[in-house]
Amino acid sequence: MTPIIQLGIGGVGRALARQIVAVAPAIRRRYGIDLRYIAIADSRGIIAGDPTVSEEQVHQILAVKEAGHGLDSMTNAITDRHWIELLPATIAIVVDVTATSEHTAPLAAAVSAGHRVVLANKRPLCDEYDLFTALTERGATRYEATVGAGLPVIGVLQGLLDTGDEVLRIEAALSGTLGFLMSALEEGSSFAEAVWKAHALGYTEPDPRDDLSGADVARKALILARTCGIPVPADAVSAESLFPPQLATVSVAEFLQRLPEAEESVMERFAAARAAGNVLRYITCITPDNIEVGLRELPADHPLAGLRGPDNMISFTTRRYHDRPMVIRGPGAGVEVTATGVLSDIIATAREL
Amino acid sequence: MTPIIQLGIGGVGRALARQIVAVAPAIRRRYGIDLRYIAIADSRGIIAGDPTVSEEQVHQILAVKEAGHGLDSMTNAITDRHWIELLPATIAIVVDVTATSEHTAPLAAAVSAGHRVVLANKRPLCDEYDLFTALTERGATRYEATVGAGLPVIGVLQGLLDTGDEVLRIEAALSGTLGFLMSALEEGSSFAEAVWKAHALGYTEPDPRDDLSGADVARKALILARTCGIPVPADAVSAESLFPPQLATVSVAEFLQRLPEAEESVMERFAAARAAGNVLRYITCITPDNIEVGLRELPADHPLAGLRGPDNMISFTTRRYHDRPMVIRGPGAGVEVTATGVLSDIIATAREL
Ligand SMILES: NC(=O)c1ccc[n+]([C@@H]2O[C@H](COP(=O)([O-])OP(=O)(O)OC[C@H]3O[C@@H](n4cnc5c(N)ncnc54)[C@H](OP(=O)(O)O)[C@@H]3O)[C@@H](O)[C@H]2O)c1
Ligand SMILES: NC(=O)c1ccc[n+]([C@@H]2O[C@H](COP(=O)([O-])OP(=O)(O)OC[C@H]3O[C@@H](n4cnc5c(N)ncnc54)[C@H](OP(=O)(O)O)[C@@H]3O)[C@@H](O)[C@H]2O)c1
Repeated sequence: MTPIIQLGIGGVGRALARQIVAVAPAIRRRYGIDLRYIAIADSRGIIAGDPTVSEEQVHQILAVKEAGHGLDSMTNAITDRHWIELLPATIAIVVDVTATSEHTAPLAAAVSAGHRVVLANKRPLCDEYDLFTALTERGATRYEATVGAGLPVIGVLQGLLDTGDEVLRIEAALSGTLGFLMSALEEGSSFAEAVWKAHALGYTEPDPRDDLSGADVARKALILARTCGIPVPADAVSAESLFPPQLATVSVAEFLQRLPEAEESVMERFAAARAAGNVLRYITCITPDNIEVGLRELPADHPLAGLRGPDNMISFTTRRYHDRPMVIRGPGAGVEVTATGVLSDIIATAREL
Repeated sequence: MTPIIQLGIGGVGRALARQIVAVAPAIRRRYGIDLRYIAIADSRGIIAGDPTVSEEQVHQILAVKEAGHGLDSMTNAITDRHWIELLPATIAIVVDVTATSEHTAPLAAAVSAGHRVVLANKRPLCDEYDLFTALTERGATRYEATVGAGLPVIGVLQGLLDTGDEVLRIEAALSGTLGFLMSALEEGSSFAEAVWKAHALGYTEPDPRDDLSGADVARKALILARTCGIPVPADAVSAESLFPPQLATVSVAEFLQRLPEAEESVMERFAAARAAGNVLRYITCITPDNIEVGLRELPADHPLAGLRGPDNMISFTTRRYHDRPMVIRGPGAGVEVTATGVLSDIIATAREL
C-alpha cells in the first residue's frame, strides 16, 4: 500500500480526491500500486484514517467541503495535531494542494525523513533556495502541476537536464488570465474593459491584482529557473505589474473602479507594438544569466506570438533543440487538469516505492 | 547498480552510449542510481562485461563502430550466444535501439522474467497485439522515443489515461520528411523536385519509399492507438502511399527517375486543398473507433495547419482537454534527441528499481 496525506481539499484537492477514488482499482491492476489516503486536511481540521481513510469517508469529506463547511465540523476531525505525527514508518506521499507557505518546513522535514512530496502549491518551492534544494534533492519532490497545470513542463525540463542537455532559453506564456487580456486588446477592447470582463466571468482571481501584478507568474519563473539549476534567491524574480503603485493597496471595488488609471501605460505599449508590426505578450524569459517576467514585444513569427486566448505555451531552446525549439501548449489552469498533473506525479512516485 | 544491455549501436545507439557515459556521475549523485552496461550488441557480435563493460571499453566500441566495423572484429566479442543468457539475477534494463524484429520474442521473455525494457525501435510494439500487451503490462516497457523521438508523447498519453482521462481524438504530424515535402509544395516546388531535394540532402531514408509509403507513420499510429488501449491487430493500420503501386518494386535509382509518375495525384490533391482555402498535411488521426494515416485537407485555423517544415506535432483532445487540446511540437527525429528520449526512459525505469 502507498499511504497518501493530502493537505488542502479546495478546487484542485476535491478534483484530485475524485480522480484517485475513480482510478485506484485500475492503478492497482495496472501497476500493482495500492493508493490509500491516511489523512486529508483543510485549513481547519484533519481527518486521519484508522489506519486508512475509507472510500466512504472520502465521499463524506467531499460532501462536507462542497457544502462549504470545514473538516473540523466532522465528528472524527483532529484540530490540535500536526500531520507530521501521522506519517507512517513506511514511506508516504505528502500532497500539498493548499496555497499556503505554512507546510514548507514540515514538508522538508518529511523529505529528510525519507518521505516523498507532490505539489500543486508553488509556495514551498519559492522560499529560501536551501529549502528548494532540501525538498527536491534526489527527486524526492515532484511538482509538475505548479507550472502549466497538467501540461508536461517540469518533467520534460528535468528529462532534458538529466540526460545532459543544456538549456539556452525558456520562453513561456504562463498566465491564462494575462493571455486572455492580451487577446482582448487585439480584438479591440480597452484594458479596463478586458479586466472587468475577465473578472466578471471568473477568469481572474477574486482580487484581479493577484493576476495583474505578475506575482503568480514570477513564482512559476522562479520554479523553472531553480529547476534549471540556477540558484535564484527567494524574491529575486520581479515581475512587471500591469497597474500603477497607487492602486496596490485600495479595496478590490475601488481598484476595479479606478482601473482606467492603468489604461494609458498598457495601451501605449500595445499601440507601439502594433505600429512596429509586433505583438504584445506577457511572457517569462529565462536564460542561464537572466530572468525576465513582463510585457514583451514579439515579432509575428515568434513561436509565442501565435498564442491566442488563455492557453499556456512553453518553448525550450536547448543545445539539442537548437534550430527549432520544443514547444508545449494548452490550457494551463483548471481544477481537473491540475489534478491530472498531481495524480500523474503521485503515480510516478508510487511506482518508485 | 542498474545493469543495462543495449541492442544496436548505430546512430541512436552511439549517441545514447555517449550520453550515458557523460551523465552517469551526475545521475549517481542526483538519484543514487549507478547505470552500468553489462553488454552492447550490434548485428554481428556482443561485447559482454566482466561483470560490467568499462567506460574505456565503451569508448573502444564507439571507435570500432565509427570506423564502420562490426563488434565481431573486437577480440572479446561473443558471436554465438544470445544476450538473454547474459541477463543477471537482479533486474536489468534491456534497451533496443536496433531496427529489427528479431529481438521481439526475447524481449517479451525478459519482461516475463521480471526485467525491464526501453525501446526506440518501434517493431517490437507492432507485432501481434498479445506481444504488445506482454511487453507493456505493468509498465515493464517504456517507449517514449518511438513516437516523436525526445518529445513528450507516450508518457503524456499514459499519464492522461492513468489518471482517468479519456482520449477523444489524437491528431498528429509524425513524419519530419513528409512535413518537409508538404512545405516544399507550399513554397511552389513540384512533388518530384521536393523528393529529389530531400533525398539529396539526406532528409529521407536511403530508399525514399520507406518515408513515402507512410509505413513508418503507420507504425507510430499503431503504437499510439495501442497505448490508448485499443486492441489493434498487427498490420491493421494502413497508410496512404504517396507513390503508385507500379513504383513499389523497382530499384531506388529507377524510382527516383520515374518519380514524375507520382506527381499528378499528389499535385491534384494539393491544388484542390489550396482552391478550397485549406492546407494539405500528411497526418495521423486516431479516435476510439477509427485510425487514419494519410493526406488530409485541414482548414487554415486547424492546430496542425500552422506546422511548417520537418517538425512533429501531436494534438490530444480529451474529456479534460476538450475545448482546447494539449499540443506538443518540435523536432521528432535526430539521433541526439532520440537518445534523450531513450535515456529519460532508462532513468525513469532505474528510479523504480
Ligand atoms: N486551480 C488551478 O487551476 C491551479 C493550477 C495550478 C496550481 N494550482 C495551485 O493548487 C493549489 C490549490 O488550488 P485550489 O484552486 O484548489 O485552491 P483553493 O480552492 O483555494 O483550495 C485551497 C485548499 O487549501 C486549504 N488550506 C488552506 N490553508 C491550509 C492549511 N494551512 N492547511 C491545510 N489546508 C489548508 C483550504 O482549506 P479550506 O477549505 O478550509 O479553506 C482549501 O481546502 C494552489 O496552490 C494553486 O496555486 C491551482
Ligand atoms: N534516428 C532517428 O531519428 C530515430 C528516431 C526515433 C526512433 N528511431 C529508431 O531507433 C532505432 C535505431 O535507429 P538508428 O538511426 O540508430 O539506426 P541505425 O543507425 O541503422 O542502427 C541500427 C543498429 O542496430 C544494429 N542491429 C541491427 N540488427 C541487429 C540485431 N539483430 N541485433 C543487434 N543489433 C542489430 C545495427 O548493427 P550494425 O551496426 O552491425 O549494422 C546498428 O548498430 C530504429 O528502430 C529507428 O526507427 C530512430
